[in-house]
Parts: sequence; C-alpha cells; structure tokens
Amino acid sequence: MTRIVITGATGRMGRTLLQAVDGDGQAELAGAVDRPGGEAVGRDAGELAGTGPLGVAVGDDLAGVLPGGDAVIDFTLPEATAVYAEQCAGAGVPLVVGTTGFDEAQQGRLNAAAERVPVLVAPNMSIGVNLTFKVLDMVARALGDDYDVEVIEAHHRNKVDAPSGTALRMGEVVADALGRDLAEDAIYGRQGRTGVRDQKTIGFETIRAGDIVGEHTVLFAGAGERVEIGHKASSRMTFASGAVRAAKWVTGQPPGRYDMQDLLGLR
Amino acid sequence: MTRIVITGATGRMGRTLLQAVDGDGQAELAGAVDRPGGEAVGRDAGELAGTGPLGVAVGDDLAGVLPGGDAVIDFTLPEATAVYAEQCAGAGVPLVVGTTGFDEAQQGRLNAAAERVPVLVAPNMSIGVNLTFKVLDMVARALGDDYDVEVIEAHHRNKVDAPSGTALRMGEVVADALGRDLAEDAIYGRQGRTGVRDQKTIGFETIRAGDIVGEHTVLFAGAGERVEIGHKASSRMTFASGAVRAAKWVTGQPPGRYDMQDLLGLR
Amino acid sequence: MTRIVITGATGRMGRTLLQAVDGDGQAELAGAVDRPGGEAVGRDAGELAGTGPLGVAVGDDLAGVLPGGDAVIDFTLPEATAVYAEQCAGAGVPLVVGTTGFDEAQQGRLNAAAERVPVLVAPNMSIGVNLTFKVLDMVARALGDDYDVEVIEAHHRNKVDAPSGTALRMGEVVADALGRDLAEDAIYGRQGRTGVRDQKTIGFETIRAGDIVGEHTVLFAGAGERVEIGHKASSRMTFASGAVRAAKWVTGQPPGRYDMQDLLGLR
Amino acid sequence: MTRIVITGATGRMGRTLLQAVDGDGQAELAGAVDRPGGEAVGRDAGELAGTGPLGVAVGDDLAGVLPGGDAVIDFTLPEATAVYAEQCAGAGVPLVVGTTGFDEAQQGRLNAAAERVPVLVAPNMSIGVNLTFKVLDMVARALGDDYDVEVIEAHHRNKVDAPSGTALRMGEVVADALGRDLAEDAIYGRQGRTGVRDQKTIGFETIRAGDIVGEHTVLFAGAGERVEIGHKASSRMTFASGAVRAAKWVTGQPPGRYDMQDLLGLR
Repeated sequence: MTRIVITGATGRMGRTLLQAVDGDGQAELAGAVDRPGGEAVGRDAGELAGTGPLGVAVGDDLAGVLPGGDAVIDFTLPEATAVYAEQCAGAGVPLVVGTTGFDEAQQGRLNAAAERVPVLVAPNMSIGVNLTFKVLDMVARALGDDYDVEVIEAHHRNKVDAPSGTALRMGEVVADALGRDLAEDAIYGRQGRTGVRDQKTIGFETIRAGDIVGEHTVLFAGAGERVEIGHKASSRMTFASGAVRAAKWVTGQPPGRYDMQDLLGLR
Repeated sequence: MTRIVITGATGRMGRTLLQAVDGDGQAELAGAVDRPGGEAVGRDAGELAGTGPLGVAVGDDLAGVLPGGDAVIDFTLPEATAVYAEQCAGAGVPLVVGTTGFDEAQQGRLNAAAERVPVLVAPNMSIGVNLTFKVLDMVARALGDDYDVEVIEAHHRNKVDAPSGTALRMGEVVADALGRDLAEDAIYGRQGRTGVRDQKTIGFETIRAGDIVGEHTVLFAGAGERVEIGHKASSRMTFASGAVRAAKWVTGQPPGRYDMQDLLGLR
Repeated sequence: MTRIVITGATGRMGRTLLQAVDGDGQAELAGAVDRPGGEAVGRDAGELAGTGPLGVAVGDDLAGVLPGGDAVIDFTLPEATAVYAEQCAGAGVPLVVGTTGFDEAQQGRLNAAAERVPVLVAPNMSIGVNLTFKVLDMVARALGDDYDVEVIEAHHRNKVDAPSGTALRMGEVVADALGRDLAEDAIYGRQGRTGVRDQKTIGFETIRAGDIVGEHTVLFAGAGERVEIGHKASSRMTFASGAVRAAKWVTGQPPGRYDMQDLLGLR
Repeated sequence: MTRIVITGATGRMGRTLLQAVDGDGQAELAGAVDRPGGEAVGRDAGELAGTGPLGVAVGDDLAGVLPGGDAVIDFTLPEATAVYAEQCAGAGVPLVVGTTGFDEAQQGRLNAAAERVPVLVAPNMSIGVNLTFKVLDMVARALGDDYDVEVIEAHHRNKVDAPSGTALRMGEVVADALGRDLAEDAIYGRQGRTGVRDQKTIGFETIRAGDIVGEHTVLFAGAGERVEIGHKASSRMTFASGAVRAAKWVTGQPPGRYDMQDLLGLR
C-alpha cells in the first residue's frame, strides 16, 4: 500500500487525484495540502472530491504531512512545485510532478531535489499517450516511406490552439523516425486543386467539436492496408491514474530524474 | 429478371457493371456495347470482366441489341450518352446514366428522351451516398445550431482536389438545413492560435493517404454526445450495384427524368 | 428566457441539470428543490453544482417555487414524480420527466396531469439517441435486405447486461423496418465454424471495457459500401441538455403527453 | 532495381503480384511462370494483369528464367513450391514464399533450399499485420492488467470461421504478454445478465457484413483512456506489396530461412 500526499488538493486536478487514490486498491491517502489561506483547509478531503469522507483533513503545510507519506503527487504551479520539491528532498520522500511551464531556475531546483530523492516529471501523465509515442516510433521505422502518414485529432470547441501539442509531438516522433523535418513537411489543411499527395507530407486534420476531451489517431496507409494507432482520453482521470501509477513506481527507484518513458520501460 | 444492356462495356466501369449484372440474381446481361472499332468487339463480354463466359459478344451497335433489353446502363462520355439516349427513346427502352459533364445541349437531349422513356441520371450512383444526403438533412434540422458540424473525408493519395465533391455536397446539405451559407462558413484547416470554435463553422478535415477508395463521416457534436453519419466505399462495385438497382427500378416507371432520390423514395 | 425549476437538485443528475441550465443562454434557474430534510436545503444551488453561486437556495417545497417557473425538470423517483406532476398541473406549469420505472397507477397520475399541462416523458433524454432511432428506420427501409446489419455497442466494465437496452432498441427499429423478428434473427456472438452469414441475421457485438459511457454504431454493409450510423455519449450532461431543450420546447405546447420524438418533429 | 520472377502468374494472387511489381519503382518483372499446359502460356504477362503489355511472355519453365532474376515470389501450392525451391537453390536465386499448408516433408525441402539461398516464408505477407503483432506485445506489457482488452474484427459475409485467424493470433499475443491463457480467458459473445466484466477476460467481437476484406482493432481501455491498435486490409494488393518488399529485402541476405519479423527488424 503506497501512502500518497496530494498537493493542490482543492483544484480540479487535485480533486481528480483524490478520487484516483481513493479508487486504487494499492494506494491510500496520507495527506492533502492546499495553499495557506485556502478556504477548504480543515475540511475532509473526500468532501471536496465527492468520494465520501476520507478521514484526512486538508492542510496547508506539506512538511507536516511528509513523514506519513511514501510519495507526493503535485499538479500545481511552477513556483509552488519548486518549493515542494525541496521539502520532499529534505524529508526523503519521492515526488511525481505534472505541473508544466518551469523556467530554467525552477528546473534546476527540481534537478537538485532529484539528487536526493526520485523525481518523476511528465507534462502528460497519461500512460496511453506516452506509450503511443513509443509505438509510433516503432511503426514509422518499420513501415518507412511507402506509407502515407496522417495525424487526426479531435478536441472540444473551446480549445484555442491547433493542432494539439500531443498531435504535434506525435508528428515529430514520426518525422524523426523517418528522417524528416516536421517544420517542412507538415500540412495543416487541404483545399482546392491540391494535386497528388507529396509522399513526404505529414498531414494534420484537426477536429474541433462539442466537448471532446481529446482523441488522436495516427494513420499509416500503404497499398491495400492501413495501420492506425489511436488514443482517446475520456476524462482527466486518465492523467490522475497515470500519476498514481507513477507514485507507486517511483517509491522503488533510486534518486534521480525520471519521466513516463522510464516507468513504462520504453527507453 | 431484368435484361440489361451495358454500354462502354470494355472500360473499367463497364467491366464492373458486367460483374454486377452477373452477380445479381434478378438481372441478366442482354447486350454489351463498345464504340465501333474497339478491339474487344466480338469477344465474349465475360472474358473482359473476368466472370467467365457470359454468352454475349461485345458489339458496336446499341440499336441492334435494344430489342432484347429491358434497360440500358451507360457510364460513357456525354456525347455518346446523348446519342444512346435518343436510340433508347426510339426503341422504348429505359436508360440509367452515370456519365457526368453534360453541357446544356446534351442535357436537353436527355430531357427529350425522358419524354418518351424513363431516364435516371445520377452523378453518384451509390445507394449509400444518396441516402446519406437525406439523412444529413434530417439530422441537421433535428439537432440545430447547438451541435458543431465537422465533415471528415479520406481518399487515396492520387486524388487531386480537396475536399471531395461528395464531402462538399454533404456540407451544403447541412448548411442548407441550418440556414447557413457554406461559402462563408466552411473551414478547410486549422493551425496555430485559432481561438475558440465559431459556432456557425462547418469544418472539413481532408485525409489523403494510401489507396483509400472514399470515406466520409459527418460529425454532429453537442454537450456530452455525438451523432456520426458515415459512408465508406470500398470498390467501384458500389456504383455498379447502384446502377443495376436503378435499372431494375426504372423499368417500372412512366417516362420522365429521375435521380437516385426518386428510387430511394427520399423526396 | 425559460425559467426552470429542478427537482432532486442535490443528486448526481440534479447537479448535472443545474449545470446544464447554467450553461444555456436561453434558460435560467427559477428554483431548486430537494426532498424535505435533505442536508443541502438552504444552501445555494450553484455551490452544489460547482458552478459558482446561482442566487437560488435549495428548497424543499415545489409548490412554493412554481409561480416563478416556466417549466419543471424532474429526474427523481416514480412516487415523487407523481406528486410533483399533480403540483405542476395545479399551478399550470409544464413538466419534463426523465424518471423511469412508473407503475400503472403512477402512469395514470402523469396522464391526468397531462390533461391540464404539457408533460414530456422520456426514459432516454438524449437528443442524439432519439434521433438515431428515427434515422435507423429510414436507412433500413431505404437499403432493404441487400445490406447486412450489425449493431456494435461499447459500455464500461461495470455494466451488467448485454447488449444495452439502447442497442436492442436499435435492433428492433431495424427489424421492424425490414419486416423481421428480432427474437429470431438476433445473433449475440460468433465462434468456430459459423458458415456463411445468414442474410436475415442482425448481429450484436458487445464491447465491455474501461469506463466507456456508451457508444452505439449500426452498420449497414452492402456490395462495396457501408453506411454507419453512430452515437457516442460522453457524459450524463447529454441527458441534462436534452432535458433543458425539452423544457424550453414544452412551454410552447398545449396540454398533453409528449415524448422526445414529438420535440424532434420525428413522428 | 530488383528483377523479380513470379510463379503462378495467371492466378488471382499471381496477377496481383504482377501489378505490384509493375507499380514498384525499384522492381521489374524478369519472368512470369505458370504450370505447363496453362492456357496463358505464351501471352504477355501484362495482358493478364491488366497493366498493359510488360514485354514478358508467360512461360512454363522456372529454371529457364531464373538466370535473369534476382528473386522469385511464389504463391502457389505446397508441392509446386517445394520443386520451385529446389530450382532456386540450384540457380542461387532467393525465394519469397506465401504459399500455405506445407507438410513436414515439404517444410524439409524448403529448409534444405534455405541452406543454399535465402528463403522467406510467411503465411500473411502483410507488413502491417506482422508489425501489429509486435506492437500488441509491447502495448500489452506496458499497460498490464489495469486495461481491459477487446479484439474487434470485421470480415465479409462469406467468411466461414470466427473469429479470424489473425484476430485469434492477436489475442494470443496479448494473452502471452499478460501471462494469461487464451483458451480460458477468451469470450466470444455477451448476452443477458452477464454481470460485471471479469478483468482477465479477452473479448472478441466478430462482425460479418458485406464484402469487408479484413479489419482488426485491439482495444485497451483503462480509467479515462483507450489505446486502439488497428489494421485494415482493403485489397489483396497489400499481400502482394509485402511480397515485393520481401523480395527486395531477401536479395541482400545470406542463405537461411526468414519470415516477415526478420524483414521488419522486429525480433
């Protein structure tokens, strides 16, 4: 049983993390921390998460709960994460970080912590997405240039950028595997008299509709056959589940900096 | 049993029509016609079509075989079709036309024939595609503006225009049903900081890859649900089968001009 | 602006309904009612729903809030619904009911209310699913027996029955349209030496995996083409949105009993 | 430019192989062989294949054309293949075999040939399917038991067995990777009160409809996400293309017996 501490426990992601821990038979909640002054401080964490009472009150002091924890999961903001990392290092508790947007100084503080405890950092904690990156590399190398590559993704109507960062990363993985340069070879739309398809092209088709959480398919199409590698996220629970899995894994590692590829054994 | 005459019998579509007639338990081949001087004239039609012998030699004179036919199927070229239509009108034999690209004078000759015999003309003879147009109209009217509409299509790498004519027609059907103007509201690609989706948009995502014959999906996405209307063509046999079905249907109609919507009872 | 009263406001469906009303530009919350003694009584409804304050306190007396409402949405339990229907009838306020499991006496009380106010009752309030039933009828009639029909559905691992009630209903709609009897023609799995497909069969393929909310596709496959009619539910918000749409629609109707087919104009 | 000899050149697969060679910029036809007495002997191979004249007459003597060839592709019958293998070994020409159904003695003759020339033997020459097996092994190991596995496949109405051999092989690959026994854990249909899904189950959903060539999807579904690995064959050209790729590859190998996993570098 891995005892897990959640930071940022009252935010949307924090509450999903509380649910994920509650639903995992091999993990239990050891602490829930919010920023000092947060209005939820003192309330039962489960009340926030809609899980029913969990017997753990939300606190505002990470250091105070670290002694009872095997690992910390943190999806907050860069500056807070850097402070939490130092506290974890001091207490000898491993850390899983889903926060994004670190500057170099903050990265340095994470790295310093990683010299003393294991620290896993990943911008997308989904097991499936990280695995898909590896699969795409393998598939692209095996199929080579005879197969046309297209990346189709769909997200909700409120997403403001296109294609998604994950779709672009998928395209990069394929381009790298095939010795291409995505900056040159990407196509983001087709209209009118396009002529026949240029073989080196990697096409992106970006769907924006409804409240789709996030779907990605990479299509490799050759003569008479297609290989399709797809990932569908249906809730942010997938990111929380990935983080809990990471927390269980990271407790068995030596100090160092890790990402999801390490956990998945996909180096 | 409907006795069918195929014009343009030695072309790719003609051979597929021969196969479709051969495979239909309620139709039989009454004649196979090619242009005069074609090298297949005199050979057994089944030899061309790879069906095994059909007992019908390819001829070069439509008028000569019309007396034994209940209907003619024609996928040739506009000028030839116009002549054939006049011959059918003279002999009292119904006609199914899949040829495209008629000018006004040729259309007039088809209409004149349609005063004497039933003439069904459709640029896409697929039952499924024609049915899908009708379904899209119904779905768009029922769902209204609360559902985002996206048209995703995929064709082979050698297709030179985008989106497909069928995809554009699907978009028009939806736009008409919703009181929109496709010329204003269509989006053909998304890249960069697009901002949130404009509700009136109809997005087209055009995949070009491998040897995909033709696939279309129209997505209607609202709060928590999606309706997807899809059509996949896997061979030109679908167009041939539609034509044979049309030939069987048209023999029971009074003179006049028809299209696939009439056959499908979807007016 | 339609002023809506929500009963059962503190349950899972009630909270989703509060969110749906809050997110609809043409609706506003006029009242939120829970059973007497509920612990949420007196709190702001938006606090429960996670929408931020809505300025409406949860009450325990429907009759007291009816004068300010244009319509009531009720997803509760049969006995409560029957009482609420009588209160609506007395106050002249239309009612939308998503509750299921009524006995005959309770149905009679709903019908009595429907003589005085419009009452819309539907066990599945999803616009898309109800529309899909109608589409399937049309598609099956148009395609006829030459197209093989298969119903593929997917739900989460905790669903205890198979196929889903919605999948079975889809099969019934198709069977009725084709003059078949689902009890005879349904196939629920294939294994071993099955022989060639019997044309009259309607196949069901039931996927159970993960936390899939609910997906249904009906496949019509003929020579060289397929038509696919699909519905995907991603959250219970789809049922809430359907209910809000029903509430806006029902306020313009004369007294009587309605269902979603009426709203969609699909009779 | 790899000079390729096709045996069984007048059969359906032989003609597709002729088309595949004709369409490959790095291969050319060096010979086309049919059984002695075949009616096509002496005709231009391209006439059979519908490619236009290829300048190679169909012969009935493999040995006679081997000196001009770099590799032979053979999809015939076991006894013929065994003889051809011996002729290849004698002439020092590599061989690609798609024939199936060898008995032990015939296998021994293939192995003997493989001591003198490279011989690649694979029952399914599709690049994509062979690659997919490898991908499934990797994905199953990475995701583990927390993800439910379902194998969905679709084939034409005339297929007499279910699930397909390829689907069953996919299931075996996953079962092996997860330490399960497919014989115990496979489920081939669901109906009625099934109860919640047993975690160890591997479900098969078998669609039979229309003229679908062959489609396979393996679904891994966990909390909030799905990974889908799919393969779609649209024509037997995919098997021919795989064979031509194999022929180009095998010419650079030392004597020995190979399969598609070797070619794809997926050992």
